[in-house]
Amino acid sequence: MAGEKNIQVLLAARPQGAPRDSDFKIVAAPVPEPGADEMLLRVLYLSLDPVIRLRMNAGSYWPAFELGQPLGARAICAVAKSNIAEFRDGDLVVTAGIWANYMISNGKGLDGRPLPKLDAARGPLTLPLHVLGITGFTAYCGLLEIGQPKPGETVLVSGASGAVGSMAGQIAKIKGCRVVGIAGGPRKCAFLEEELGFDAAVDYKRADFADALKATLPQGIDIYFENVGGTAFEAALPLFNRNARIVVCGTVSEYNIVERAVVPDKLPGLLLAILGKRLTLRGFVIGDWFAKMPEFLNATSQWVREGKIKYREEIVEGLEHAPAAFQAMLKAETFGKVIVKLGEPPG
Amino acid sequence: MAGEKNIQVLLAARPQGAPRDSDFKIVAAPVPEPGADEMLLRVLYLSLDPVIRLRMNAGSYWPAFELGQPLGARAICAVAKSNIAEFRDGDLVVTAGIWANYMISNGKGLDGRPLPKLDAARGPLTLPLHVLGITGFTAYCGLLEIGQPKPGETVLVSGASGAVGSMAGQIAKIKGCRVVGIAGGPRKCAFLEEELGFDAAVDYKRADFADALKATLPQGIDIYFENVGGTAFEAALPLFNRNARIVVCGTVSEYNIVERAVVPDKLPGLLLAILGKRLTLRGFVIGDWFAKMPEFLNATSQWVREGKIKYREEIVEGLEHAPAAFQAMLKAETFGKVIVKLGEPPG
Repeated sequence: MAGEKNIQVLLAARPQGAPRDSDFKIVAAPVPEPGADEMLLRVLYLSLDPVIRLRMNAGSYWPAFELGQPLGARAICAVAKSNIAEFRDGDLVVTAGIWANYMISNGKGLDGRPLPKLDAARGPLTLPLHVLGITGFTAYCGLLEIGQPKPGETVLVSGASGAVGSMAGQIAKIKGCRVVGIAGGPRKCAFLEEELGFDAAVDYKRADFADALKATLPQGIDIYFENVGGTAFEAALPLFNRNARIVVCGTVSEYNIVERAVVPDKLPGLLLAILGKRLTLRGFVIGDWFAKMPEFLNATSQWVREGKIKYREEIVEGLEHAPAAFQAMLKAETFGKVIVKLGEPPG
Repeated sequence: MAGEKNIQVLLAARPQGAPRDSDFKIVAAPVPEPGADEMLLRVLYLSLDPVIRLRMNAGSYWPAFELGQPLGARAICAVAKSNIAEFRDGDLVVTAGIWANYMISNGKGLDGRPLPKLDAARGPLTLPLHVLGITGFTAYCGLLEIGQPKPGETVLVSGASGAVGSMAGQIAKIKGCRVVGIAGGPRKCAFLEEELGFDAAVDYKRADFADALKATLPQGIDIYFENVGGTAFEAALPLFNRNARIVVCGTVSEYNIVERAVVPDKLPGLLLAILGKRLTLRGFVIGDWFAKMPEFLNATSQWVREGKIKYREEIVEGLEHAPAAFQAMLKAETFGKVIVKLGEPPG
């Protein structure tokens, strides 16, 4: 590390609408020195997720990033220099990280417990960023705890080729449901049907999207796992069955929007549908559900070992490409779990 | 009954917007003759409820009334001529009735069981039309099963001086909650605070309604019991606490509306609030909950005996005034439970 610089990506401005290059600032700082009971981490992989967009705003439901400070992301790191007894140089950990090559850690997670160590021999090192990480956990809790699927029910997933949606759909299949996914473009739809085992996929870019969705769901929708909002929600609404559960996990289509379209008021129709169809709409934020983490890790590790969970990663090399990759992800131009690779794991 | 006519109010036309006099037709028909295993009922009291407006439409979530046939309503009746062994002339029953002086009954309820007989000695004969009837039962199941109140929580009720809202608020008080009601005009608000024991009431007709509501709810809203929709819902939305439950029981402000106002799209903001505040919006229709009826009757009869439940009736004399009373109720010009009195109970 002698003479090495610590490249960081800072939040330069709070985006108005879609983030632009000028909202990010790349700087080089000295590599920090860990204090007593601290350790220096070398960041290997960063997870790019839509929630980061929400945290670029002030006043969202997640804590906002500070202007002039590095952006945050879940990260896989190697311990580079440890002043903490439990950690040695070369240990691999998953943590709440920052967009930087190096960071200081107190060795503890947000729950106050020691950071979990990873074993590269046990499988791909990136899985704790998605299938075995927060996005997988989000899909698991949202589908099973909020959605409460029963075998034979029909589950619709929006953003179905993304990190959360692809897991939600596959877990629904494991639980014996019929699963339909909404994704953008024939390539992603083919991936859902042919690789992930969805029963059907519908391309939201089709001019006849609402009709195509309806044709794919002759028995209606019992659970809707919502990652997207907007057009997807409105196309699904008339298809909800009596007692359907709508798991409101994300509304990524809306995160960038500043001005609202002027339209005939949709609220009365929605409330009447909730009433007449006895719908349950329930929002959740994964931070409330950490008690379920051991159960999730047990179940999902087993499914991964059995080959029941598949995934697709889009790896971007180099921190300097993270802002562009993040902007592309928000436009749904990426395909699969977006991960920035900053360096190689040790030896 | 010799020579007596059976006055009936028929559905003459499906209302476009608010019902008008021309949507109703008053006719005189012969008093019908009960067949074998049937009985003739003389209707004493009819219950006017907002759900009747929904049933005047085709394609609502309740079965529609047929054009040219009598409108329906919950009714208290006296048996006038019985060919059923279990019923004798003069027995009092509560049933799914029609807007008519006389009707034929097979002696059974919608659940296939014999109609419950009423004992005029046990209390006011009209209570099975509201406090001890469907509107009370609706409030009971909606608040307790969907809302799941805990002592110390704050409950907001819209349409709070109506038959359902006044019960929901009083049951919430019995369960140890702080209760705020929304009603129209100072007279109804005073009734909530002074007669029913609500902690506060807010007049939705005030120009500063949203601000006044906010000032009344410094600790936010844990449960919102929605009878009204529209302005009430939108004023409540920013005040929902994390994990708030929204019981969607009715949206009476919308039942008459044909054209929707053109406004900036409200759906994205609602979905984001559901997500960030972990809200649960759940619709229910009381017909799904009849298994809870004995529990409801036990609990509520006890509360009535203990003087914990108060109510206000607006009695309209004569079937010919029912159409006007019904129209006034939909405009919230009535005050309390609206009941049409058609005749006196027997001797």
